Amino acid sequence: MAHLLGGIEAGGTKFVCAVGDENGNIQKRVKFPTTTPEETMKEVFAFFDQYEVEAIGIGSFGPIDINPESPTYGYVTDTPKLPWKNYNFLGAMKARYDIAYEWTTDVNVAAYGEYKKGAGVGKDNVLYATVGTGIGVGYISHGELYRGRSHPEGGHILMQREAGDDFAGVCPYHGACLEGLAAGPAVERRAGKKGDQLLSTDSVWETEAFYLAQACMTYTLTFSPDVIIFGGGVMKQKQLFPMIRENFLELMHDYVRVPDLDNYIVHVELGDDAGITGSLLAAADVLTK
Amino acid sequence: MAHLLGGIEAGGTKFVCAVGDENGNIQKRVKFPTTTPEETMKEVFAFFDQYEVEAIGIGSFGPIDINPESPTYGYVTDTPKLPWKNYNFLGAMKARYDIAYEWTTDVNVAAYGEYKKGAGVGKDNVLYATVGTGIGVGYISHGELYRGRSHPEGGHILMQREAGDDFAGVCPYHGACLEGLAAGPAVERRAGKKGDQLLSTDSVWETEAFYLAQACMTYTLTFSPDVIIFGGGVMKQKQLFPMIRENFLELMHDYVRVPDLDNYIVHVELGDDAGITGSLLAAADVLTK
Repeated sequence: MAHLLGGIEAGGTKFVCAVGDENGNIQKRVKFPTTTPEETMKEVFAFFDQYEVEAIGIGSFGPIDINPESPTYGYVTDTPKLPWKNYNFLGAMKARYDIAYEWTTDVNVAAYGEYKKGAGVGKDNVLYATVGTGIGVGYISHGELYRGRSHPEGGHILMQREAGDDFAGVCPYHGACLEGLAAGPAVERRAGKKGDQLLSTDSVWETEAFYLAQACMTYTLTFSPDVIIFGGGVMKQKQLFPMIRENFLELMHDYVRVPDLDNYIVHVELGDDAGITGSLLAAADVLTK
Repeated sequence: MAHLLGGIEAGGTKFVCAVGDENGNIQKRVKFPTTTPEETMKEVFAFFDQYEVEAIGIGSFGPIDINPESPTYGYVTDTPKLPWKNYNFLGAMKARYDIAYEWTTDVNVAAYGEYKKGAGVGKDNVLYATVGTGIGVGYISHGELYRGRSHPEGGHILMQREAGDDFAGVCPYHGACLEGLAAGPAVERRAGKKGDQLLSTDSVWETEAFYLAQACMTYTLTFSPDVIIFGGGVMKQKQLFPMIRENFLELMHDYVRVPDLDNYIVHVELGDDAGITGSLLAAADVLTK
């Protein structure tokens, strides 16, 4: 029998809520901007009040507390989005709907969506990186949402500078970390206009490809995934993919074997639906665990 | 009943072979330099021919092929130690002794030894990094030897430069990667003499602490371990630990929560026995799986 499941992709700029089935098929969805917990959660409840879902998968912007033994489990923690700092997101959901939940990051659910129905099908270890207003990294390890002590925050790793690049970086925490050097706002600051208004041959994309290739190198040398999937607004610049692969090859210098790069560094297949699809699929898993 | 088990810690400069029990207690051990497969394996066989072990845990220098579905499973692959390149290490062992084996990296067995009997006891996710002639990273994820498509090679990640540092780096593959900037040979090249001949107040240790702290940051933002354990010759410089913790704090800038740093960035407890102890413990696991 088909289950009715809920999914929330809680991004830093917008929320997507959906109901759907255990195969990740979306039946109904709404989107609204992420403002304050008061306003935003009102909209979340208005949506889910209409349905009797059996479980909800929540993929939230972070950092979040995913340690079930922690007193702040279910909280958004040290986010620069101040109204959400130390907000008990999962607690608010549970108080409203006494059902089962998956609680993980927005990028982890996107990774899971791609693992089950997108560019990660048939792979065991799937890394998903979104490059948009920020850079976030989700990871599926042997088919499971990866977690260590906490979740990956692989957008904030520090980088070897491209020769001649002295851009200060825009990350409020780390300046010139990967996010500070290569997320959408960095592209805009470097080039003087938004990425989607630039020519695909603009030299800023060479710099972008260098840093994203270096990120692929770090993920390869740590997680060692089967595939690295890029999504997010900046990655709609398809010309980046061959450039990233070329830079990656040069940086790695034949150290450790990797798959054919056309199948290793790839574009998200579910597009903007990766996260919400993964949320529903994660909710389905909660029912069977 | 006690089992007799074998362990091999196959490092790039020396091999340690041991027999012991399922609790990792070493009963007999030998050490010899790593030369060519012909010479070195002759010594390995001479040692194990004396015992009837039920399983052997092998932790080998790498990169190695740990994918059981690969045609070169059990091989040392792209090592700069040329006589070992594409050597079928596990195959040679199996041809000699038809028993059960664990086949992983030298740093993974050290991580496992620390997880079971050292500084990682009571933690689920244990990262071990050795800083010696090279830098290697092993990882235990939820109590298991971590593997993705392959094993971590976290010593070769690229680094943000310390302000003013223009040292070219000594890694033959990547120049100024972590290993190229901070392994023993880099310390020696920077300072003009070996680390153990330098004062503990030499300024080279400040540079060293900066890069090792940055490595801790990358591991925290990717694997998210419960503890980071450092071993290897360079880490016998105990003055590095408070310096690494201080740099780590500064670099992270309060992004993501980490445990108390005195319990997060720590020295190996089993010392030079971590690897061989972990090899025996990994051999014990093979019998029960």
